[in-house]
Amino acid sequence: MKIVLIGAGGTLGRAILAELSARHTVISVGRNSGQFHHDIRDLQSVRALFQETGKVDAIVNAAGSVHFGAWNELTPEKFDIGLRDKLMGQVNLVLAGQNTLMDGGSFTLTSGILSDDPIQFGACASLVNGALESFVRAAAIELPRGLRINVVSPTVLRESMHDYGPFFPGYQPVAAAEVAIAYTKSVEGRQTGQIYKVW
Amino acid sequence: MKIVLIGAGGTLGRAILAELSARHTVISVGRNSGQFHHDIRDLQSVRALFQETGKVDAIVNAAGSVHFGAWNELTPEKFDIGLRDKLMGQVNLVLAGQNTLMDGGSFTLTSGILSDDPIQFGACASLVNGALESFVRAAAIELPRGLRINVVSPTVLRESMHDYGPFFPGYQPVAAAEVAIAYTKSVEGRQTGQIYKVW
Repeated sequence: MKIVLIGAGGTLGRAILAELSARHTVISVGRNSGQFHHDIRDLQSVRALFQETGKVDAIVNAAGSVHFGAWNELTPEKFDIGLRDKLMGQVNLVLAGQNTLMDGGSFTLTSGILSDDPIQFGACASLVNGALESFVRAAAIELPRGLRINVVSPTVLRESMHDYGPFFPGYQPVAAAEVAIAYTKSVEGRQTGQIYKVW
Repeated sequence: MKIVLIGAGGTLGRAILAELSARHTVISVGRNSGQFHHDIRDLQSVRALFQETGKVDAIVNAAGSVHFGAWNELTPEKFDIGLRDKLMGQVNLVLAGQNTLMDGGSFTLTSGILSDDPIQFGACASLVNGALESFVRAAAIELPRGLRINVVSPTVLRESMHDYGPFFPGYQPVAAAEVAIAYTKSVEGRQTGQIYKVW
């Protein structure tokens, strides 16, 4: 298959690239790294990306940031960071990418454990992850031509424990390579509308 | 108790008003109706509301709109309607209202069945409802002074079947008065971080 992977330079993205490139041609995309440089927050940039890639079999996203921080310092502007980036960035990929996918092709988005299992400082991430999971359920029944969409919900990555471990007390980390396997299930399988929890 | 009810003029709001005013003093708020007129999309307007009401025991919201429409006509701007109104409007109520609540007081927000059980034309609503439910789980572990937060997720209302029935094929409608009982559970009970599904 020919697969576009956005966020290929991150900790999770690199593991997905290793997982998928063993069997597929993967086009890596990042804001500042990879074969193509695009910003998912900008629908025009996403449209330009798919004009450059041409038709593909799968679009996989591992990009998207949100604000983490103290509850009593949260503002609408801090929520907006995640709404524009991790949430609408991934929605932009779906809105703009559906004409680029071959019949039966797939989107695989990324949410995260905090939609179900919250931590202190993580309210913006919880909100965005919950939105993504319900969006995927809805998009799955709307997409034309047998197009599919799933979302992978990872827990904290083992590789990120040095930076994020203290924020996830009692959470069992998972290696990025193990999370990456869930993307293969979405891309190579036939399911749609699923939330693959890796935790 | 002294309770602020936003969206008191809507189909669901009127039923919640009838349910809660039997035992409590309810201050009704709406964009253009009720005792106070405020717009939850505007954080400054929400702050002004709580300066007018003074301390209360519960804040209940039944307001908030989203775009419904054809999948192939969706744009970021159409998602933005619900992000600004039903989603961030309710987040604004929580951010601004926490200092107005008495110790142990509660927020009760409103999501909807489409977070779990999507319909055609409902992707924006699904996204917003999922965001609200995960936000409530997160806020419940962050709120100070024993403040509580829950969300009621109604299915389609019996009273709305004339307008919305065709969009909900095979969905069993529930009377607004029955949905309203869930708000009593949140306000008068002691639970927090819960999603009360009325379907």
